[in-house]
Formats: sequence, C-alpha cells, structure tokens
Amino acid sequence: MPAKQKTLHDLFLHTLKDIYYAEKKILRNLKTMEKAAEAEELRQAFVTHRSETEGQIERLEQVFELLGKRAQGVTCAGINGILEEGESSIEDFGDSEAADASLVAAAQAVEHYEIVRYGTLKTWAQELGMREAEQLLDQNLQEEKKIDQLLTQLAEARANKKAA
Amino acid sequence: MPAKQKTLHDLFLHTLKDIYYAEKKILRNLKTMEKAAEAEELRQAFVTHRSETEGQIERLEQVFELLGKRAQGVTCAGINGILEEGESSIEDFGDSEAADASLVAAAQAVEHYEIVRYGTLKTWAQELGMREAEQLLDQNLQEEKKIDQLLTQLAEARANKKAA
Repeated sequence: MPAKQKTLHDLFLHTLKDIYYAEKKILRNLKTMEKAAEAEELRQAFVTHRSETEGQIERLEQVFELLGKRAQGVTCAGINGILEEGESSIEDFGDSEAADASLVAAAQAVEHYEIVRYGTLKTWAQELGMREAEQLLDQNLQEEKKIDQLLTQLAEARANKKAA
Repeated sequence: MPAKQKTLHDLFLHTLKDIYYAEKKILRNLKTMEKAAEAEELRQAFVTHRSETEGQIERLEQVFELLGKRAQGVTCAGINGILEEGESSIEDFGDSEAADASLVAAAQAVEHYEIVRYGTLKTWAQELGMREAEQLLDQNLQEEKKIDQLLTQLAEARANKKAA
C-alpha cells in the first residue's frame, strides 16, 4: 500500500503485531530470568509475571479477533535490542554481587517498553472508537505498571538497606 | 576482570556509558523528528527537548567526573533497536494521516528507555552513597518524565478530538 494511503488503523495493527512478537519473546526470556534470580522474592516476581504474560498474549489475540485479523507477529527491533542488552549484562554480571541488580535493570527496561507500547495502543484504540480493544489493552498496561512498581520496590529496598 | 569480582560500582559505570551513548544518538535523532513533525506544538516539543538533551549530556559528563572517569559511551543495543524501529515506522507512515501519531509513538519509546535507565542509575547512586550523582541523574529523570507526559497529552488531545 502506498504510504500516503495508510491510516491510523494500519499503524494500530502494525504496532499490535509488534507487541505480540515482543510478548512471545518476553515469555521465553522470563524463564531465563527466573533461573538467574538469586533473591527468592525476585524469582517469584518473574514466575508470577510469566503467567501474567500468558494472559496478556491471550488478550492480544482477542484484539486481533476484534479486528477480524489473524494473530501474527512482526519482528520488533526495539524489544530485540533491549533483550540483547539484558542478556549481555546478565552474562557480564551474572556471577557478581550485582547479579540481581543487573537482572532487575534488564527486566525494568523490558517493562517500560511494554508500558509505552500499551499506552500508545490504548490511546489509538480510543481514537479509533474501539472500546473493547481499549479495555483489553488497558488491562495489559495496568499489569505491566504493577510489575514495574514491584521491581522498583525490590531495588529500592536493597538500596535503602545498603545505604543505611 | 573476572565476572565474580565485578561490583555494583562496575555495573553503574557500565550503565552510565550506555546512557551516554544513547543520549548522543538521541540528540541526532531529535533533529530528524523535528523536521518530520507536522503539528507545530509537536515540532516545538522536539526543539525544546533537543536543548534539554544537550544539558543532560553535560550532567552525565559531571557524573563521570565525580567518578574520576573519562566520559565515554558503549554501544547500547537497546536504544539502537528502539531508534531503528522508530525510523522504519516513520518511513512507513511519514506521508500518511498517521505521520505525527507514529512520531509520537517512536519518541515515547525513546523517552521510556531513558526513564527506566535514569531510574535505575539513580537508585544505584543512592545505594553507592553518591549523593551528588543521584541528584544529577534525578534531574535528567524528571526532564524525561515531563517530556513523556507532554507527548501523552498531545496524543490524548488528538484522540479525544477525533473520538468526540
């Protein structure tokens, strides 16, 4: 399709495919994070979020259905770069005293990518008058914000303990 | 250095180099965004943020100085992926009715990468007892949050107008 004829609906569908690809990669990545975590509460956070991520993928599939489209991913350079960076940091610091700190940082970079994408998709769904899709995307957004806050709390609790 | 001997201080320095590299790439990217923006208020947001970004780079250089290190970047796969994705979206939608929407989405993905990195660096600076660095990083963090909120407002204002 010529670029000029593209609509916000096309951009919405493209970005939906992008986050669908991202969530599926994140699901696999969370298993690695789980195994690498030292603190039990951090490991537990990854376990919980893995099961949430499965639910999020199902909600995305519902949004595809609302659009009358087959659920399908497109390569997402953003999440690939973020995950690559996280893996390299875990490789470099996985055996050190900063192992869990590097894991939390990597996980929060992933969460923020999801937060921004769901925020954008939710606004576009509103603009396109797709009320049901907007609600599904908002549910994913709220879950991502919650896990990001939990990771911040874990990081700050350790920082406060050390700084005290 | 063997991974086991690495410290949180090493992780802090590595992540500082990472965001320093990212900010310099973002600075160049903001010129492209500025030229591509259709709405005057969006163009103006990019102009303002470009000058803020210059100040942020200077603050990062002050943090390097506090550490007694030369300001130096390391390739940051995260921001490279995010910028690559943004450029491809602007190429695909730059001529369409969704041009500004794709610009805002790309810019907010960049902002969220910076927000998460500055949040992490600030917490680590606290943990490492580096009060002055913590304050400098917090200033960058607050600026990033502010521009992200502005971009959200611009997107929501357009969505509300269309949906009304």
